Amino acid sequence: MDYAATTPVDEKVKEAMLPFFSRSFGNPSSLHSFGRETRKAIEDSREKTADFLNASAEEIIFTGSATEANNMAIRGVVANYKKPHIITSQIEHPAVLRTCQALEKEGIEVTYLKPDQEGIISLRSLKEEIKENTALVTIMTVNNEVGTIQPIKEIAELLKEKDIIFHTDAVQAANHLDLNVKELGIDLLTLSGHKFYGPKGIGILFKRNSLSLKPLTFGGHQERGLRPGTENVPAIVGLGKALEILEKGKEKELRDKLLKKLLEIERVKLNGSLKKRVPNNINVYIPGIEGEALLVMLDEQGLAVSTGSACSSGDLKASHVLKAMGFGDERAHSSIRITLGKYTTEEEIERAGEIIKETVEKLRKTSGYK
Amino acid sequence: MDYAATTPVDEKVKEAMLPFFSRSFGNPSSLHSFGRETRKAIEDSREKTADFLNASAEEIIFTGSATEANNMAIRGVVANYKKPHIITSQIEHPAVLRTCQALEKEGIEVTYLKPDQEGIISLRSLKEEIKENTALVTIMTVNNEVGTIQPIKEIAELLKEKDIIFHTDAVQAANHLDLNVKELGIDLLTLSGHKFYGPKGIGILFKRNSLSLKPLTFGGHQERGLRPGTENVPAIVGLGKALEILEKGKEKELRDKLLKKLLEIERVKLNGSLKKRVPNNINVYIPGIEGEALLVMLDEQGLAVSTGSACSSGDLKASHVLKAMGFGDERAHSSIRITLGKYTTEEEIERAGEIIKETVEKLRKTSGYK
Repeated sequence: MDYAATTPVDEKVKEAMLPFFSRSFGNPSSLHSFGRETRKAIEDSREKTADFLNASAEEIIFTGSATEANNMAIRGVVANYKKPHIITSQIEHPAVLRTCQALEKEGIEVTYLKPDQEGIISLRSLKEEIKENTALVTIMTVNNEVGTIQPIKEIAELLKEKDIIFHTDAVQAANHLDLNVKELGIDLLTLSGHKFYGPKGIGILFKRNSLSLKPLTFGGHQERGLRPGTENVPAIVGLGKALEILEKGKEKELRDKLLKKLLEIERVKLNGSLKKRVPNNINVYIPGIEGEALLVMLDEQGLAVSTGSACSSGDLKASHVLKAMGFGDERAHSSIRITLGKYTTEEEIERAGEIIKETVEKLRKTSGYK
Repeated sequence: MDYAATTPVDEKVKEAMLPFFSRSFGNPSSLHSFGRETRKAIEDSREKTADFLNASAEEIIFTGSATEANNMAIRGVVANYKKPHIITSQIEHPAVLRTCQALEKEGIEVTYLKPDQEGIISLRSLKEEIKENTALVTIMTVNNEVGTIQPIKEIAELLKEKDIIFHTDAVQAANHLDLNVKELGIDLLTLSGHKFYGPKGIGILFKRNSLSLKPLTFGGHQERGLRPGTENVPAIVGLGKALEILEKGKEKELRDKLLKKLLEIERVKLNGSLKKRVPNNINVYIPGIEGEALLVMLDEQGLAVSTGSACSSGDLKASHVLKAMGFGDERAHSSIRITLGKYTTEEEIERAGEIIKETVEKLRKTSGYK
């Protein structure tokens, strides 16, 4: 139940990828038939990706990860300005936050918007921070820890009026929301293959056609020079397949059932808005337990959950997201994230509810919590 | 016969990768058992990679491509200096050349060494260009077009004396040469998975432990913060396996046989040193034919060869390598590269020799060449 960290590759996706390891292995830049074959496979996948986003094929850039796509988008825009100001939020993924922090060290001005206690960035707070030199706003579509959905359509409308470029990290949204970039009015959008039953090692940056980006890396002509290096053909093919077969939002009923059960545990509280939230996410505050201790004990019983996001869980710091929402260290350390996926079953939900309840009681007893 | 462009994934490598798509799919940053399992797989592969290079595991950084590794090495070093001078060569891969050119535009001084007519960079020419502010030398181990082997051990010795950092793009060397970084005295070295029967979408940067690099991208703590983003577990596992089973240099006999046959065609000449050359490479000047035309006609007969490198073959420019070696446009346009691999058979060599001879004669007749 840690699908927000990563998902298994769908069997259909794997089947689509397999021929491109040893049989159709040509370098897409080669002029001979081996190369033309994989070139076509890449362009087919680009079309599928474009269809998913209601974009044009030439607006899709394949990268090695969503982190790379986020870095490319932010640095690529900023490099076109002399004294740009960036607005982002305090609850972004480290790939956005730390890129912005690195830019600050290079002398670029960044404003980090604080969310409300529900984990939502308000349009009003954004409006207040816009300056004359604001060049870029980067706000995630869905928060990775609490699953809250940000008002990106409204943000895009506001920014269009002001002629400010809008990037959104939509990594946690693809499974649940309609990501029609034309309708949403987004300029730059990031996706990650391994979050929607596609392979690891592949990210997408959607870049509106009229927008110009400075590349991060230099080399061959691949991806129109924006992301040089021999294309990862199997991963690109797998990603296209994953988007083609993606079905949205089957987890809500199971999620609600488990959440109900968890809220029956004494003093447990949901972190973040329930209403403006993707249907697979639970993030709960469980007073009297330590998140990591609970995680380890659940893991021993075969139940995988997380504290914070996987990307920062290595450092054991309290969740920057919960803290930004106004909660203290204690609440941040006593919270866990449970995220369901398309393979989650009714039976698993029943079992998970019981295991968590029992384990919390055990931990609370051990620590003398009343 | 275009193995230098890319290689098929070895079946054993594919077998090693398969479990990591859908079964062992955890995010290596996750603290639970799913994460620990893939974390271990990554660290095992890192050990294998380190063994191959006679390095320590903590000196291995996994990237998304060799292009990314080259960019990381060069930019990562340069960012530590105020007014650095870089020395490279005119025959580098675009991933090095264009990175240096981009740095020049940012005000950094770069010297591009000219090779001799045999395609070798001389130690003397390097010595002459070293300045007080020379911070980095980046010279490839093996040229990708003509297969010539550069004197990297001698270069490393010279640079050690002068306290200058040495990076080498060894992408075309892994199949043929002993890459013992300790013995060679190299500081930074780049490899690419798909050039030695491993997967695409994975590169390696070896970085000597005592050396500090500024990262290109920012995000999670992966690869010690130098290359953030969820690790491409299957590709990393495959790469380790590919290095583990790599066997060196079985192509020499077949190469020599084919070369002999090609040199029997009237006025055909070898480009680049025969002696200082990897054993799978042929690059020949065939007066009176146009490289691309020959490539297309050979392709129609099932024989894949290349003109220049795959990475720049999209633009149909005359080979920058042959031109740097002192040859004119005519010779550069009338040359082809043939590269053998571990699956090349005696029979294929026989057949290739005949096809090329016949096709060259046909083309020469058509164009009225005498």
